[in-house]
Amino acid sequence: MPKNVAVLNCSQLVTLAGAARPRVGAEMRDPGIIENGAMLIREGRIERIGTREEVEPLVVPNCEVIDAQRRIVLPGFVDAHTHPVFGGSRADEFALRAAGATYQEIAAAGGGIRSTVRQTRAASEDELVQTGKRYARWFLRSGTTTIEAKSGYGLTVEDELKMLRAMRRLEAETSLEYVPTFLGAHAFPDEFQVRRDEYVKLIVQEMLPQVAAANLAEYCDAFFEQGYFNEAQTMRIMTAAQSHGLKLRLHADQLSLAGGAQLAARLGAVTADHLEQTNAGGIAALKAANVQPVLLPASVMMIGARKYPNARAMIDAGLAVVLATDFNPGTSPMPSMLLALTLASTQMKMTPAEALTAATINAAYSLGRGHEIGSLEVGKRANFVVHDCDDWRELAYFAGIEHPVAVFSRGRLVAQRDNNI
Amino acid sequence: MPKNVAVLNCSQLVTLAGAARPRVGAEMRDPGIIENGAMLIREGRIERIGTREEVEPLVVPNCEVIDAQRRIVLPGFVDAHTHPVFGGSRADEFALRAAGATYQEIAAAGGGIRSTVRQTRAASEDELVQTGKRYARWFLRSGTTTIEAKSGYGLTVEDELKMLRAMRRLEAETSLEYVPTFLGAHAFPDEFQVRRDEYVKLIVQEMLPQVAAANLAEYCDAFFEQGYFNEAQTMRIMTAAQSHGLKLRLHADQLSLAGGAQLAARLGAVTADHLEQTNAGGIAALKAANVQPVLLPASVMMIGARKYPNARAMIDAGLAVVLATDFNPGTSPMPSMLLALTLASTQMKMTPAEALTAATINAAYSLGRGHEIGSLEVGKRANFVVHDCDDWRELAYFAGIEHPVAVFSRGRLVAQRDNNI
Repeated sequence: MPKNVAVLNCSQLVTLAGAARPRVGAEMRDPGIIENGAMLIREGRIERIGTREEVEPLVVPNCEVIDAQRRIVLPGFVDAHTHPVFGGSRADEFALRAAGATYQEIAAAGGGIRSTVRQTRAASEDELVQTGKRYARWFLRSGTTTIEAKSGYGLTVEDELKMLRAMRRLEAETSLEYVPTFLGAHAFPDEFQVRRDEYVKLIVQEMLPQVAAANLAEYCDAFFEQGYFNEAQTMRIMTAAQSHGLKLRLHADQLSLAGGAQLAARLGAVTADHLEQTNAGGIAALKAANVQPVLLPASVMMIGARKYPNARAMIDAGLAVVLATDFNPGTSPMPSMLLALTLASTQMKMTPAEALTAATINAAYSLGRGHEIGSLEVGKRANFVVHDCDDWRELAYFAGIEHPVAVFSRGRLVAQRDNNI
Repeated sequence: MPKNVAVLNCSQLVTLAGAARPRVGAEMRDPGIIENGAMLIREGRIERIGTREEVEPLVVPNCEVIDAQRRIVLPGFVDAHTHPVFGGSRADEFALRAAGATYQEIAAAGGGIRSTVRQTRAASEDELVQTGKRYARWFLRSGTTTIEAKSGYGLTVEDELKMLRAMRRLEAETSLEYVPTFLGAHAFPDEFQVRRDEYVKLIVQEMLPQVAAANLAEYCDAFFEQGYFNEAQTMRIMTAAQSHGLKLRLHADQLSLAGGAQLAARLGAVTADHLEQTNAGGIAALKAANVQPVLLPASVMMIGARKYPNARAMIDAGLAVVLATDFNPGTSPMPSMLLALTLASTQMKMTPAEALTAATINAAYSLGRGHEIGSLEVGKRANFVVHDCDDWRELAYFAGIEHPVAVFSRGRLVAQRDNNI
């Protein structure tokens, strides 16, 4: 990697610059555009950023020059909620669902998450890394440079560790940054359906200590939902996770309104994710406890549901909203933050600037990396993407295609489109 | 172009083969898969298709060999409803709409279709070709090899001809096939708002004769809708178009239920497009007159509407349903048939096979090209796409990304993805 890199000739440099904390309210509506912008990078970090006139005179000899050719340049997207390691696919269930089968029917036939658990258990760590690399390429191609990555399809000590080890290898062997989350409490495995507290005990007494000892996760998550982990079980797991030094994220209020937002607040979770059913009381609880909502519109769209989370009420209440794909083989086989932006604006009435803030700097803060990534500012990592657009608002507007022509992580080219043919 | 090409090592060759007519009912649920398939192409046409065992022994010396590397191979998508030539974009309105502005408010501020008409009139033919090439690349990259292309943003004799000439040049200068449709009756231009029948007269007496004389369109379309072209005006235009030898398509029942399907049937239109509001009576009329419905789910999704056309009732009634993007700068800036497939299955409950049939062979028949394109069968044009999927059902399931790695039209490579980085 060259020591010095200059990025010149950007029609718009979309910086997302601002105060050193998550953006709320009107702050979310300012993407920090520098028209005719340029950037100097030194050893993978941004050294200087400004207009062409300010920056170009500072280009040193032997500097590698990247000509953005009047395109727009953005920070790499930060996808703060994904399940990117799994065995098999569920394309067959997608077809069944289109043909009218309900989730209940699919689950009764051995499908749903249990199908992915079976296939993930059957896969070797190598196989999980191999298929994981395919998905890593999709994330990078779509302009995402960091993802939060959950376990939760193993549901045995060894298979959960296998998933987390696969993520560690993917982090090392691809150019995508993985922020690992332990989600042993994703579902109750078949063998514990009639002794659920025993599974909770397995998580607390075996999985969590081993995950923590091997330093395989930064966060712990749980699926708090009717029929899944109840309040007492969730509390027990999350409290144990905290005692091991893990920070918390919580699947909350996705299918039913059962106080998930309030529970996330009580636990001091960093994020509460999904929130399709969350009402004003939940929003107030999140606000009081400074919990960031992570909204996942693709998981609503992909299953053909109609109720999206109330993003407007959350932004208006001053919450530092985050947008993510929920990439997973069941409810959201959709890795593109670009399409998530489109859904945010069309289905949740987030403005393009709010959606972009939620997909970058706010997401970075939700992963404890707001000081490192998520915006283009002096001192931060040079994670940036050249998108083939004339104006940043085209990103979500021209939908369904991959806009990035060049993706950089720490100043290094990690994905590229050949536009010649 | 080499005379002989062999396509080998396809995990699945998705042929869409069948009777020489549009597919209806259960026929739409058979994509005609050849596992382990191969294909021989001679002078741009399919000469032989079958399993590897059947085809490989027939490969002649000096034949160019395309190794599909165990990927799936499909016919190029046929997008039977697009507006791919226009000046400017409406990314600003997308942002306003996300911020809560209604169509009426945007229109009152000079936005909406009038904005695109202003920008299209202001653009030269060269400029329309230039921006049109950008969109042509998007179609090709997404695996579409033929589009129906409507005029309708000029709304003067000269500007409508300019749009159609731009399409003819795009057809010549890109690898995408354009099937031109004259849509002078897209809206009433500002200068004719108070003397609407005068504009109809302009269409009938000047535009249509000149379009026909220059052989610039195969089809004529009109926007039959409350506040736009009424029944008498639509009848007058469409009857005149028929007298010039143009076949008919009709924008029907998009915003209100006003008998658009019935009118399409009475006119003997080839297609009735949109049909969001169409009820059982409309479906029966389409069936009786053998009109193909063209469904456009992206134009529902992109404006945040919730009412999709009743695809299930149409398929169950035996209609040869077609799926298209409606690519246009207002309601559907979305050129990807892949995402249209995803929306068809998740929002309209079409099975993946039904959606694929609607996006290929049925679309080809709706454009009078069912004998040439839309399926992989002996004698047809070698328009085919290698998608980076293990199974054809992944096409719509893994959503938001571009699956094609190589796109061929008449046996010639016209778009390619470099997957190396």
